[in-house]
Amino acid sequence: MDRIEAGRQVLRELMGEAFLEARDATRNDFNAAVQDYADDVCFGTVWSRPGIDRKTRSILNIAMLTALGRPNQLRSHIEGAINNGCTKDELREILLHTAVYAGLPAAVDAFRVAEEILRKKEML
Amino acid sequence: MDRIEAGRQVLRELMGEAFLEARDATRNDFNAAVQDYADDVCFGTVWSRPGIDRKTRSILNIAMLTALGRPNQLRSHIEGAINNGCTKDELREILLHTAVYAGLPAAVDAFRVAEEILRKKEML
Amino acid sequence: MDRIEAGRQVLRELMGEAFLEARDATRNDFNAAVQDYADDVCFGTVWSRPGIDRKTRSILNIAMLTALGRPNQLRSHIEGAINNGCTKDELREILLHTAVYAGLPAAVDAFRVAEEILRKKEML
Amino acid sequence: MDRIEAGRQVLRELMGEAFLEARDATRNDFNAAVQDYADDVCFGTVWSRPGIDRKTRSILNIAMLTALGRPNQLRSHIEGAINNGCTKDELREILLHTAVYAGLPAAVDAFRVAEEILRKKEML
Amino acid sequence: MDRIEAGRQVLRELMGEAFLEARDATRNDFNAAVQDYADDVCFGTVWSRPGIDRKTRSILNIAMLTALGRPNQLRSHIEGAINNGCTKDELREILLHTAVYAGLPAAVDAFRVAEEILRKKEML
Amino acid sequence: MDRIEAGRQVLRELMGEAFLEARDATRNDFNAAVQDYADDVCFGTVWSRPGIDRKTRSILNIAMLTALGRPNQLRSHIEGAINNGCTKDELREILLHTAVYAGLPAAVDAFRVAEEILRKKEML
Repeated sequence: MDRIEAGRQVLRELMGEAFLEARDATRNDFNAAVQDYADDVCFGTVWSRPGIDRKTRSILNIAMLTALGRPNQLRSHIEGAINNGCTKDELREILLHTAVYAGLPAAVDAFRVAEEILRKKEML
Repeated sequence: MDRIEAGRQVLRELMGEAFLEARDATRNDFNAAVQDYADDVCFGTVWSRPGIDRKTRSILNIAMLTALGRPNQLRSHIEGAINNGCTKDELREILLHTAVYAGLPAAVDAFRVAEEILRKKEML
Repeated sequence: MDRIEAGRQVLRELMGEAFLEARDATRNDFNAAVQDYADDVCFGTVWSRPGIDRKTRSILNIAMLTALGRPNQLRSHIEGAINNGCTKDELREILLHTAVYAGLPAAVDAFRVAEEILRKKEML
Repeated sequence: MDRIEAGRQVLRELMGEAFLEARDATRNDFNAAVQDYADDVCFGTVWSRPGIDRKTRSILNIAMLTALGRPNQLRSHIEGAINNGCTKDELREILLHTAVYAGLPAAVDAFRVAEEILRKKEML
Repeated sequence: MDRIEAGRQVLRELMGEAFLEARDATRNDFNAAVQDYADDVCFGTVWSRPGIDRKTRSILNIAMLTALGRPNQLRSHIEGAINNGCTKDELREILLHTAVYAGLPAAVDAFRVAEEILRKKEML
Repeated sequence: MDRIEAGRQVLRELMGEAFLEARDATRNDFNAAVQDYADDVCFGTVWSRPGIDRKTRSILNIAMLTALGRPNQLRSHIEGAINNGCTKDELREILLHTAVYAGLPAAVDAFRVAEEILRKKEML
């Protein structure tokens, strides 16, 4: 399987078929390149590597995206973490941990995003 | 045990007695407040919480400090991660993962710091 | 008084009882930990220290939150600064000063947030 | 012509008279200082310098504002870049390039902003 | 007095004649533009404005440069703050405050820079 | 040619054979993955795309790396920009432009890095 296809499969397993279809539905001649880059490089090359599991990759993203202030992708990766087995208690501890290292504002913003996802998944 | 003492104990277990002594040796009337804050809040309050283990806390820090560009603390937490059971292969995968999300420059800077620690620990 | 209670009292004095009640109303088993961390560490430990006054702490936050791009907390701390005696003219000078050091985009975003608060307080 | 007037002229040429009028309509005694700073320093001093052309200045801004996560100004400068001759293909390549250096989340956020502008200009 | 001259005078009062001479000695045809921009825009325009005093401007910079991770300029502005009347105790409180909002790593890096300056000024 | 080879060729053309050899000499079982990622993704996939030329890619990097505070890679890409036809005057204008958008500290740090490269290339 080529890397774009491998990446789409990882994304499908991480976020579900509906997510992948919704993203494909937004595809146009401008953004096709970044969708392909995400599938090829992000999911098809890096996520596909062995050595650390998907739950670990998801929680690394939660920490990074909280520190970097990227709520759109944080939303997706909190959802992906939960799909990969991260519990609500683990999520809370991860976000509280970021308060020390990335600062309280970063953590507070991330808690707000996490609560959206937890409500959507009827876990709160 | 009060929180500062609890924090010192966590730091001792994470980095070793020599690290703690070296840090204490730098204490003066100006920086005592931030050393106490670190022991109290960071190690004695947040690190001491159950729910996620120390290896997980260490790798979250590796990701955040790489994204935030803080090599001094990244150095300590890479060392702490290794002390907490993170293998060289896992470390490589964590840092490569940051290249996608925090950008290649952030990851390249982190690989350089990691190699210092691995050489110091005769793992490279 | 324990640190959480001390912190709640600082927050009450800074932002008003209504703000504290509104925040408490959002409390749940997921976010309780970060609300307690904020009250304990942020307000009950650091804000409670002598040495610099509350207006100074507020304006330091305005500068940092502008540089870091955290509009949600910037909104609160601009309001807190005004409650702590910061005038509209001082606020303007603080934000213009950030344009040099954090860049014009950061300052422009902060001016927009400040105008929301000033209008809410009928100062603009 | 003094620098504020020179800056207003650059902004008029970059974004159009309607943009300048809309911005002037928001002027009040609080934000006048930052509007004047933008016209004086940003457009009337730096943008007015020879040596690199306006299209180049616009694309440098696209890269910086993507990396810094400033969507409001990114919106304006993507529009300014298009006004200065940047094609849709060039814009795509610039944003894809940021994915490597500023990380995929930064680039994905920027692609979303760019699509808004391209739709507004009926180029997508 | 034109703005560059006004700015040089502010810089002279803030950091001393020796600092200004040392900086002038590094001037060449490449960096003259940024030295002039600093004198003109930063010191001659923004710092010269009334409304907030120089000590306040200095401490805002300490907070921002700590959050942004810019140790070179942090060094200068900590020195400038001390020259403008900031005491060692106030400096400590400012930096500890940043630990909450910008994260502990940012504050620890800043404490290290501050200790360099305090030792240089025989205040530690 | 596979993407890693294509990327090595781009890097060779951008920075010279000596740079590539020096980098290869540092290769080990830990960092091979990030060297391959750089060659594959950065140079072999993104830099290899048509649509914007190499000089443009280099100057976008100068702007981003200045804003992000990554001096190690900024050093390389300033050198690459000069190799790709960027003049000293253009480099000055690019860096001065960043002062407005990324803040004066970011620009001052970048001017210092640029002067190192210009001296190394006997252009200053």
